Amino acid sequence: MADAKTTTAAPMGPASRAYGGTHEVKPLPFDPAKLKGLSEKLLTSHHDNNYAGAVKRLNLIEQQLGQMPKDAAPYQLGALKREELIATNSMILHEFYFGNLGGDGRASGPILPLLAGAYGSLATWEQEVRQTGLSLGGGSGWVIVSYSPHERAVHTYWSADHTQNLAWGMPLLVMDMYEHAYAIDYGANAKSYIDAFFENLNWDAVNQRAEQARAGVT
Amino acid sequence: MADAKTTTAAPMGPASRAYGGTHEVKPLPFDPAKLKGLSEKLLTSHHDNNYAGAVKRLNLIEQQLGQMPKDAAPYQLGALKREELIATNSMILHEFYFGNLGGDGRASGPILPLLAGAYGSLATWEQEVRQTGLSLGGGSGWVIVSYSPHERAVHTYWSADHTQNLAWGMPLLVMDMYEHAYAIDYGANAKSYIDAFFENLNWDAVNQRAEQARAGVT
Amino acid sequence: MADAKTTTAAPMGPASRAYGGTHEVKPLPFDPAKLKGLSEKLLTSHHDNNYAGAVKRLNLIEQQLGQMPKDAAPYQLGALKREELIATNSMILHEFYFGNLGGDGRASGPILPLLAGAYGSLATWEQEVRQTGLSLGGGSGWVIVSYSPHERAVHTYWSADHTQNLAWGMPLLVMDMYEHAYAIDYGANAKSYIDAFFENLNWDAVNQRAEQARAGVT
Amino acid sequence: MADAKTTTAAPMGPASRAYGGTHEVKPLPFDPAKLKGLSEKLLTSHHDNNYAGAVKRLNLIEQQLGQMPKDAAPYQLGALKREELIATNSMILHEFYFGNLGGDGRASGPILPLLAGAYGSLATWEQEVRQTGLSLGGGSGWVIVSYSPHERAVHTYWSADHTQNLAWGMPLLVMDMYEHAYAIDYGANAKSYIDAFFENLNWDAVNQRAEQARAGVT
Repeated sequence: MADAKTTTAAPMGPASRAYGGTHEVKPLPFDPAKLKGLSEKLLTSHHDNNYAGAVKRLNLIEQQLGQMPKDAAPYQLGALKREELIATNSMILHEFYFGNLGGDGRASGPILPLLAGAYGSLATWEQEVRQTGLSLGGGSGWVIVSYSPHERAVHTYWSADHTQNLAWGMPLLVMDMYEHAYAIDYGANAKSYIDAFFENLNWDAVNQRAEQARAGVT
Repeated sequence: MADAKTTTAAPMGPASRAYGGTHEVKPLPFDPAKLKGLSEKLLTSHHDNNYAGAVKRLNLIEQQLGQMPKDAAPYQLGALKREELIATNSMILHEFYFGNLGGDGRASGPILPLLAGAYGSLATWEQEVRQTGLSLGGGSGWVIVSYSPHERAVHTYWSADHTQNLAWGMPLLVMDMYEHAYAIDYGANAKSYIDAFFENLNWDAVNQRAEQARAGVT
Repeated sequence: MADAKTTTAAPMGPASRAYGGTHEVKPLPFDPAKLKGLSEKLLTSHHDNNYAGAVKRLNLIEQQLGQMPKDAAPYQLGALKREELIATNSMILHEFYFGNLGGDGRASGPILPLLAGAYGSLATWEQEVRQTGLSLGGGSGWVIVSYSPHERAVHTYWSADHTQNLAWGMPLLVMDMYEHAYAIDYGANAKSYIDAFFENLNWDAVNQRAEQARAGVT
Repeated sequence: MADAKTTTAAPMGPASRAYGGTHEVKPLPFDPAKLKGLSEKLLTSHHDNNYAGAVKRLNLIEQQLGQMPKDAAPYQLGALKREELIATNSMILHEFYFGNLGGDGRASGPILPLLAGAYGSLATWEQEVRQTGLSLGGGSGWVIVSYSPHERAVHTYWSADHTQNLAWGMPLLVMDMYEHAYAIDYGANAKSYIDAFFENLNWDAVNQRAEQARAGVT
């Protein structure tokens, strides 16, 4: 990019989108008093503290990135870019997570043959999701079922913190395994939380995302 | 998913796609003898060892996942799922990386106003990419410019290893900052490598990906 | 080590200490019913599930390492060695953590001038500990005040999971910031947990460790 | 620590040791022109760029920590504390690493029965070190043989970046697996680098550390 060095850089700042810091907290897409085995207290705390906290933090981070001096040491920028990735993904993954709760847990729709096709059977897929979730119990992480354009297939991924994700894809079904997703209701019992997660899973939302993914990047 | 426990699971194994282990190594999409400032020795080693090694490892991992006993401890599955994520992303990111090399480095096309719009100016965007890259010098990582459907915009992300990526998006421009991307030619001089990267950047490939991303997930 | 390749390796297995898997769970060193602001339910769950779970897992991992085939792919060994590090450190850090709870929170003893000397004042030190703790709220991690033989001084360290620790040193004062350390009692309120931690801090234990550290590695 | 809040904090700053930023780069403890299979160019670059760079960065970070405003958001402190841990451990581990090079590679001394005792045989121990090293090839990390006071034994640990270490212990034998430790000489051939590492291993240094460790923390 030969001309870049002779271009006068516009001042970094709120005018540019990347440094805008204008993300907004979305409300829970369901009535938190009505889920089975996940209390209103837990769900509201999860939304108001962990999710909304990430969104507000991301706004601050973006604005700080816009004010980073050009002569800052690279590690100063890198440290803030890492915080940006954490907060960005926490925002995105929590929106997918809440977006696939509030259902009746009855598996249905065109996603089912895709899962069964990829894993040999639906039960094999669910076994892997549940065991991957248990492997994250007592710590932090996510289990993420994504559409992978590279595979042209659905696939389940392990993540031990917000930063860890498939390099190219769209989450279809997201299960939060941070302890804030269950400790208030279940203490250390990650297994019962996973049961509750599946009982409240909104398969319609999962199917809509799968439809969107297949219509898009392929 | 109430019925899952009563379903008889098909045996996990090579018949299912997720455990197939059939990924194939793609050749370099350019003549490695013809890049400016990146030697054939470096590029061939990078491709044959780091990229191809990840593909072959992924195939083994997928097959081992298919043979994981159902009563394995969760940490055994988790450890292998982590290796799967590492190898999967290494494969994907290396393909994007090699795919956006081999060009003449002249910035052009519809991606430019998108970058300038997001960051205030093209120079500001490039400054952030370069400084983020420098922050990863002497270690491992990637700088990844992605299309983010959540933002409906392009954005630059920091990653300190293969596992760290935007939770939902498509890489458009990928710069490898693992030391194997430059040490053979540049030793510890990450700055000169970044110069060479930009001089060989294939903006046509970046523009094609941006077009694909915008036509897809939005 | 020229002779190693011609030496006949003894079979790896339980006979060797590194693969022994004989770690034992230590009981809580205080009456969990008697702490201020940390419930018996929380403390017992923390001990019985998170700490004891790590010890038991470590025993399994060590035995599996002893049975690892010599021709296993390196990533298979690496994945298990990572699990070993996680479980080993979880065991060690939890023992330090429980070991410095159960006190009356009144700061005293020869550690105080060491902390004040390193940080300018005790209040500055405590401010950094508390803020570092808050930075880990909603996720996982530890705040660890260690004796560093390299510094010949005490110093406070950030850790975002069990694996992250000072490369050479002895923990003197350990605060668990995994959500399982507080969510049952405080939900997302990490700040109130940190208050409770300091109110139950056993400064005698901290002083004994400091004495041991100074008598030892210097 | 009831009184802390009423104490007037001294201003954080260079006067306090923790924020002093006065670490000094130590020279290589051997003549880099005389090692077998590790070039002077490689060793000098490794020392001058990677090790010395970490020391200089640590000094900047400590001073920035001393100037952190008290009302900074916790993530701002946490991000800098993470950089501090990275730079601190890079400094320490590189000093151990260079300190155990420059020898003739002939295994000898009281460390040998400790290693053989822990692992069943010296060859078993070396096999694990070598395979753990290979598992880190193509990325970053360390293989660290430590004295663990918790075990009252020596043990080998995996680390994928500077932050990952045994929670309580003293490194006795440290092998750098970052690509900057070998790529200049060996490209992607981590196996040949590990051979060269063992051929230049200074067992006297390892034995001296083991003696120091046993005399100290036990």
